[in-house]
Amino acid sequence: MAMQHSPLLMSRILDRGARLSPNEEIVTATAEGVRRQTLRETRNRAHQLAHALKAAGIREGDRVGTFMWNGSRHLEAYHATAGMGAVLHTLNVRLSDKDLEYIINHASDRLIIVDADQLPQLEALVGRIPSVERVIVATEPGFEGWSTTLPNPVDYEAFIAGQPTTYDWPEIDENSALGLCYTSGTTGNPKGVEYEHRSQYLHTMAQAMTDSMGLSATDTLCGIVPMFHAMGWGLPWTALMLGCKQVMPHRFMGVERLAELIASEGVTVSAGVPTIWQGIKGLVEANPGKYDLSSLSRVTCGGSAPPPSLIRWYWDTLGVEMIQGWGMTETSPLATLSRRVMKRSQLKLSEDDQFRNVAKAGLLMPGLELDIFDDNFNRLPHDGETVGEILVRGPWICSEYYHNPQPEKFHDGWLITGDVGKIDADEYLIISDRSKDLVKSGGEWISSVDLENHIVAMPEVAQACVVAQPHPKWDERPVALVVAAPGVTVDKDKVLAHCATAFARWQLPDDVLQVESIPLTSTGKMDKKVVRANLENQGYRLPDLR
Amino acid sequence: MAMQHSPLLMSRILDRGARLSPNEEIVTATAEGVRRQTLRETRNRAHQLAHALKAAGIREGDRVGTFMWNGSRHLEAYHATAGMGAVLHTLNVRLSDKDLEYIINHASDRLIIVDADQLPQLEALVGRIPSVERVIVATEPGFEGWSTTLPNPVDYEAFIAGQPTTYDWPEIDENSALGLCYTSGTTGNPKGVEYEHRSQYLHTMAQAMTDSMGLSATDTLCGIVPMFHAMGWGLPWTALMLGCKQVMPHRFMGVERLAELIASEGVTVSAGVPTIWQGIKGLVEANPGKYDLSSLSRVTCGGSAPPPSLIRWYWDTLGVEMIQGWGMTETSPLATLSRRVMKRSQLKLSEDDQFRNVAKAGLLMPGLELDIFDDNFNRLPHDGETVGEILVRGPWICSEYYHNPQPEKFHDGWLITGDVGKIDADEYLIISDRSKDLVKSGGEWISSVDLENHIVAMPEVAQACVVAQPHPKWDERPVALVVAAPGVTVDKDKVLAHCATAFARWQLPDDVLQVESIPLTSTGKMDKKVVRANLENQGYRLPDLR
Repeated sequence: MAMQHSPLLMSRILDRGARLSPNEEIVTATAEGVRRQTLRETRNRAHQLAHALKAAGIREGDRVGTFMWNGSRHLEAYHATAGMGAVLHTLNVRLSDKDLEYIINHASDRLIIVDADQLPQLEALVGRIPSVERVIVATEPGFEGWSTTLPNPVDYEAFIAGQPTTYDWPEIDENSALGLCYTSGTTGNPKGVEYEHRSQYLHTMAQAMTDSMGLSATDTLCGIVPMFHAMGWGLPWTALMLGCKQVMPHRFMGVERLAELIASEGVTVSAGVPTIWQGIKGLVEANPGKYDLSSLSRVTCGGSAPPPSLIRWYWDTLGVEMIQGWGMTETSPLATLSRRVMKRSQLKLSEDDQFRNVAKAGLLMPGLELDIFDDNFNRLPHDGETVGEILVRGPWICSEYYHNPQPEKFHDGWLITGDVGKIDADEYLIISDRSKDLVKSGGEWISSVDLENHIVAMPEVAQACVVAQPHPKWDERPVALVVAAPGVTVDKDKVLAHCATAFARWQLPDDVLQVESIPLTSTGKMDKKVVRANLENQGYRLPDLR
Repeated sequence: MAMQHSPLLMSRILDRGARLSPNEEIVTATAEGVRRQTLRETRNRAHQLAHALKAAGIREGDRVGTFMWNGSRHLEAYHATAGMGAVLHTLNVRLSDKDLEYIINHASDRLIIVDADQLPQLEALVGRIPSVERVIVATEPGFEGWSTTLPNPVDYEAFIAGQPTTYDWPEIDENSALGLCYTSGTTGNPKGVEYEHRSQYLHTMAQAMTDSMGLSATDTLCGIVPMFHAMGWGLPWTALMLGCKQVMPHRFMGVERLAELIASEGVTVSAGVPTIWQGIKGLVEANPGKYDLSSLSRVTCGGSAPPPSLIRWYWDTLGVEMIQGWGMTETSPLATLSRRVMKRSQLKLSEDDQFRNVAKAGLLMPGLELDIFDDNFNRLPHDGETVGEILVRGPWICSEYYHNPQPEKFHDGWLITGDVGKIDADEYLIISDRSKDLVKSGGEWISSVDLENHIVAMPEVAQACVVAQPHPKWDERPVALVVAAPGVTVDKDKVLAHCATAFARWQLPDDVLQVESIPLTSTGKMDKKVVRANLENQGYRLPDLR
């Protein structure tokens, strides 16, 4: 051994931010304004929480659930469980009772830390989650009077009170489990992705790169993406390591409150799904001059692809760089990233060309491998035209699901992502669709995402969703559902004429339906499974089949 | 296994830059101007070199020596050996024949790739380096007619010609050896530090962080630090991963040529020892307006601490941020780093206060641990005053020397760095001295570095070197050697009066000697061992002992 083989444990980097910038703040939105605590306090409280968890019988490898919004106590739970070697199981507060019951039992969570406002939802599971010995209730203003019949409830503050503020983090195997996150399954039961110390450590380092999100200790981060989605995209870890100021919206996810928080706390970088950024755009347009978002320099957009028109609006109107990221729970999640300028040769591109690149899913993070394959797992050319299944592998990519391996989702060490796309000559990944959302018409594929992005650029359209409908001759044909901008009606022929400027005749939707809203999944994406089910329940038929 | 355990091999990241930015350039200075090749060509040639090395019998773990300047072929040797699993042994071209012979034999190098202009020095070892089966000669303009009696010489181009341009990089253990670099020993034989794939991979990721050197694919890097010093501070690896343009000065290390190269190639980031930056400063001052260095945004300075006045000059005159780094061959080398603004709280500091921080060795890189200890290895307080031995540990820190473990240089898993320093309340490391260069006077320590930095800020002083001289009463007393600025004489009393503004009376040098030059080590640091030896040979005695 010539070099030290120190294990890559999150405990080796988590305390660093608090050590270097002890007075930096963690700000949590409350019903009364905001709650502030320093990084040093956060670190000390995390160490106290670890002691309290240990006293409650939690051992290395035990699952500790959180049923929480983004807030300082959720951050402490991240820090404490990672440090002590327990496994943080982030429960999505938007799941159905049925899914929630399934995943708590599947993971055998021993404890659940729950935000008091979320107690009623958990309460519904009383008697159905036998592994849970105790709930720890995080109380925010307005919820001091909580009560529950869940087992052995204790207030979070009482739970950690009096515990020592330094826990001697154990040296465990770097491939030990760190976290558990279930994917919002579109078919069957949710599947658990188990993150490990080494995988998350490497993901954290990659996220801190200049050519990644460029996160720095000088940043004020507002992670809007919930901490129960793929570890909040890894941002809480990276920010703890660097010592960033963090601003956490808790349950106040309305766009007005988010915009106020960004303005009042001087947020420089934020992260969320496109629907959040669509909402803030609408708010700013409806209230000119009301929100000073000048501190904001970049927002990371993931979960689904932001429309190019949205990316451009943020740059032209607010001077904010929207960074597109692509990944999924199974990829920790950062796999590719697209920024305005990612190569030296792009410095001299026109702004229009730069934004053409941002509209792509991006370039691969160092250390990962990614390629597109045909049905027989032959690699396909990188010509920007050939579409194939996207497979990815590398040190922060899932190799099996938790206690449910699902070997058909993997091939020869690669994760079969379920997304299809192309890779262009500049090595940009371009997502065509989720494979299940592609429209297969007459043996050809039509990208629902491309049609949606094109339609939503029309000023009279607020949202657009394209789904396949069965057709006896073509197998499937696309139908567009559109939500109109306030006070406007959307004209079918106008939408089709607009699409005809960019798509071939056979790619145009067979129908355009104006709807009040598009149903969303628990992760804020358009829920096309529900859209398709609704159409079926309504007895919808394509125009030429009526 | 829940996450993929892909090994951290350099081959997983080295080809990335050429894939993403194939037309980016590697520029090498030659006697006729510069030689250019694209990243794609560089990658292909590296794969060809690997095939050629394999055909020459090189197997995984075999040592391949390089006796080369910074240039495209040296970069190809880095890339090829790392990819194929051989061990790159970078030989310092400035070593004595005796040391060179020792380290080639100690490492059992099987092949040496040598720049043709360096053949005469290697030639001196004919018959004394039996492990070397073959030399591969890299020929630059002006050296086409090389000849040598070294074994089985072959021209580099002939060696790689016709080889396939893709080598299927093997999957080896991530703790396999990658490189070998001997430290310029101040006592005894040179000691080898063996880098491993995992250690260098993690170092590369850390170097690419925003809060580290901030290297980006949009940068044009000119690594002036030789690639035979601690893997060129790791910069060649990071630049290959990101796909940076790289500008390599080869043997043209004079400051005029360096400044021309920076100007003509639009270099944005460079790295070198303080003497280089002192030299370029002198050149710019002597030739106002001659060199357009406006593309340059930051220079990394390491090897020894740059004087604060130099750091400030670069910022005030050129708008260039000097980044101070601290480390050594044993630390891969990046351990701490200091930039103008490294924390959010520093954004509001005055420029003077920001530069006070840059004058410190900096903040610890994520993943490492560092502390100061007393003689009994008790940790000392971080009060900015208490001085102790600096120990460091982590995944890119050496754990023993190559075939020469030297357990006394390590303690309980920590590397004893041989530097002494303090840590302030903001967690900045401040180097007082190499422990062997500290002046121990009357039981107290005097920092030679602090005195030097103070003296060199005088306009009439170009360089200053402080060494200890034996004293019967005080054990040791400091003596300052100064090189005057051109056309000036340095007045001893003026130097002492200047020192008295910042140092206690007992800390002032006992003597100030004006000299023509200060001898440098092969790594460009002031060679205090030689300075002390020269004084002894001259029969120097302290004033109060005459």
